[in-house]
Amino acid sequence: MLEELRKQVYEANMALKKSGLVLLTWGNASAFCKEEGLLVIKPSGVSYDELAPDNMVVLDLEGNVVEGNLKPSSDTATHIELYKAFPEIGGVVHTHSTYATSWAQSGRSIPCYGTTHADYFYGSVLCARELTVHEIKEAYEKNTGLVIVDELKKSGKEVFASPAILCRNHGPFTWGRNVAKAVENAIVLEEIAKMAYQTEELSGKGRETQKASSYLMDKHYYRKHGENAYYGQ
Amino acid sequence: MLEELRKQVYEANMALKKSGLVLLTWGNASAFCKEEGLLVIKPSGVSYDELAPDNMVVLDLEGNVVEGNLKPSSDTATHIELYKAFPEIGGVVHTHSTYATSWAQSGRSIPCYGTTHADYFYGSVLCARELTVHEIKEAYEKNTGLVIVDELKKSGKEVFASPAILCRNHGPFTWGRNVAKAVENAIVLEEIAKMAYQTEELSGKGRETQKASSYLMDKHYYRKHGENAYYGQ
Amino acid sequence: MLEELRKQVYEANMALKKSGLVLLTWGNASAFCKEEGLLVIKPSGVSYDELAPDNMVVLDLEGNVVEGNLKPSSDTATHIELYKAFPEIGGVVHTHSTYATSWAQSGRSIPCYGTTHADYFYGSVLCARELTVHEIKEAYEKNTGLVIVDELKKSGKEVFASPAILCRNHGPFTWGRNVAKAVENAIVLEEIAKMAYQTEELSGKGRETQKASSYLMDKHYYRKHGENAYYGQ
Amino acid sequence: MLEELRKQVYEANMALKKSGLVLLTWGNASAFCKEEGLLVIKPSGVSYDELAPDNMVVLDLEGNVVEGNLKPSSDTATHIELYKAFPEIGGVVHTHSTYATSWAQSGRSIPCYGTTHADYFYGSVLCARELTVHEIKEAYEKNTGLVIVDELKKSGKEVFASPAILCRNHGPFTWGRNVAKAVENAIVLEEIAKMAYQTEELSGKGRETQKASSYLMDKHYYRKHGENAYYGQ
Repeated sequence: MLEELRKQVYEANMALKKSGLVLLTWGNASAFCKEEGLLVIKPSGVSYDELAPDNMVVLDLEGNVVEGNLKPSSDTATHIELYKAFPEIGGVVHTHSTYATSWAQSGRSIPCYGTTHADYFYGSVLCARELTVHEIKEAYEKNTGLVIVDELKKSGKEVFASPAILCRNHGPFTWGRNVAKAVENAIVLEEIAKMAYQTEELSGKGRETQKASSYLMDKHYYRKHGENAYYGQ
Repeated sequence: MLEELRKQVYEANMALKKSGLVLLTWGNASAFCKEEGLLVIKPSGVSYDELAPDNMVVLDLEGNVVEGNLKPSSDTATHIELYKAFPEIGGVVHTHSTYATSWAQSGRSIPCYGTTHADYFYGSVLCARELTVHEIKEAYEKNTGLVIVDELKKSGKEVFASPAILCRNHGPFTWGRNVAKAVENAIVLEEIAKMAYQTEELSGKGRETQKASSYLMDKHYYRKHGENAYYGQ
Repeated sequence: MLEELRKQVYEANMALKKSGLVLLTWGNASAFCKEEGLLVIKPSGVSYDELAPDNMVVLDLEGNVVEGNLKPSSDTATHIELYKAFPEIGGVVHTHSTYATSWAQSGRSIPCYGTTHADYFYGSVLCARELTVHEIKEAYEKNTGLVIVDELKKSGKEVFASPAILCRNHGPFTWGRNVAKAVENAIVLEEIAKMAYQTEELSGKGRETQKASSYLMDKHYYRKHGENAYYGQ
Repeated sequence: MLEELRKQVYEANMALKKSGLVLLTWGNASAFCKEEGLLVIKPSGVSYDELAPDNMVVLDLEGNVVEGNLKPSSDTATHIELYKAFPEIGGVVHTHSTYATSWAQSGRSIPCYGTTHADYFYGSVLCARELTVHEIKEAYEKNTGLVIVDELKKSGKEVFASPAILCRNHGPFTWGRNVAKAVENAIVLEEIAKMAYQTEELSGKGRETQKASSYLMDKHYYRKHGENAYYGQ
């Protein structure tokens, strides 16, 4: 089981790099094994040429390293809070992808302007609130996770209904039932972030851009998700 | 004949992917055989690595699968309405290409700002009206096709005079006398959508950007199309 | 001599394609041999896979094909007017490169905002006036060339001081002492068109962006051109 | 030692090209050997195909060529002023990368809008003042260096706290403890320049975009730099 997860996490990190979402080493992917209560994550600051399934780091949800000689990614504490709060999450991804990060830096949630967005994210992709001075100074990475969890719970949405969030002035986290899905959501997030940026430019800064109707959002979301899903392009 | 169409449709789908217009599996191409009244389309949700001429799906215009074990693309019903309304169409393409989709999301037709546009599309590339609640809830994909057909007929333009339309809050459909031409039109549409976006930014949001004159549009369109065509770069 | 020019023109056309300036077949390059009064140009509408030095077309300045079985590029008459008016020009290039074309479509000359521009183009890159109805209806391509020549002569600048022009609602032409230089100027034009676009966005639409000073323009231009040139990065 | 530096400088120049920051030959990288008081820099105007460790040029801080048959980069005098003023600098890079140059052309410093920026640059990336007429006419490249040094000293920041500057109407210089670090900083600068550009577009021209808080800047900078650094993604 862990052997398989190491391989999946390795492949997810390589896929992030290949997709163009990650410059230098600015990204990380992890997977969680509910049965064993362990997560597998990319080691810290290792270049992509040197990554291998064997140097992935295995930790428990207290942050103790169970297997591996390398330091886990500095963002590990953020991943842990997501797995603790939502046990149905099987994979988490963090990137600084260009358009999603620009939305995070502008402090804005990404409105749903069309079906490309609605196919993956139900309603806006939230931008989380700023951390307080205290949350930044002490246990910053853990608090980043707690703020994400808090915003998701406040939103009232099912955790996979909109599997992405923007950390203010920082960048996006995405998740999924497994780590491959979390990577796919990171790729889609970047594309819909770019489309929403361009849509607003075309509509003009002054007037409000018309969002997709709730009928269209429902149609596209539910033809891909849930019991009556039938969609595939 | 069908064998040849399967090959053309396979190649058209691969060309869409290679051209960068399609992220993940967000696109589909089909071809229509007027003699047999059958269309060939990409199967649903299959990755590009696994596509082959043999797994293309053959259907009649009622939507019945005639050959193939896979489900046809979910957008098949939209393609069918185009073939039913305009028998001269030999190929249809749907993508979520970034700039064309941004125009669709902003709900705006793409004005003709220059000869690159005029060489392929006579006048604006239309953005179709929103679907009603009813049209979305029942037979959504078929109604998407009916709205396209309706807008094209209302425009009064010959169907190949401007072989593309933007579905509001959704994305573009293009067509041609064959599927390779429909792919070419999708590639050109994305480029002129990008140029028009940039042209408006350079001109300033407040004032109207000057469109190409009708003389220039006529010259460029008719030197490439119709009896007196002589153009080739 | 012509053999060598055929090779140069072939390589210039391939370099345009490789540089990303040319989508589909939207570009052409030619060279002029002053001694023989002949020009060599890309054939019309031939795909880049099939181009070869042997299928380049040779013409005299009256537009008569001297060698070659294929039709010359439809833009040949424009190239000819440039060679007739400025015999020191050895190569001409036409593209629809994205940013330069967007400036042409907005009807604006590209201001000199920095040294990247000043290293190659002295002062603004001009946007030529619109053609009249008559100029479009009769001998359109030849008149496009005559308008370019007219604008260049009116500008009072030496022909190589700013070896590019934007044809309004159409796209750019560049030139050089040889066809390789004309290609280089097309590549640089696209980059400075992109930078100028971004510079204006950063400065704000309302207020005027500050242009490079005439001192800086002189310094950069003359350290690369003329008798006292010493520059190389 | 010099042998090793030649190799490093060669590899740094090739990495700049590969990273997409350098069009044609618009960039140069150098390294400084404090022990010998010598710098190694790219030769002038040589294409990347012909670069090799052996044709790098070695100079003393007076600008005298000590080894090498080729002319050093025209920007050598600028590099020299940086090494003279800050002996802890081991490598310098100059590019005309698109977004960083657009900021330089708009005459604006790049505000710190997020953690991607804060991880590498403490506070704004400065845009230096314009050179005077006199500074441009005489010893332009040397004066460019002197203005950079002057701005850095006036900023009061430690030289590696924000290892980049924008030369007004020109483009960026970056540096580091070695030339590989200077290249990395050039890559990061271009990305944060792009993100800041997009962040401002999303926030609207009229109102001020909120910068990252000083707490967040401190946290991100100091978790990567200095004694208590612990960061790695």
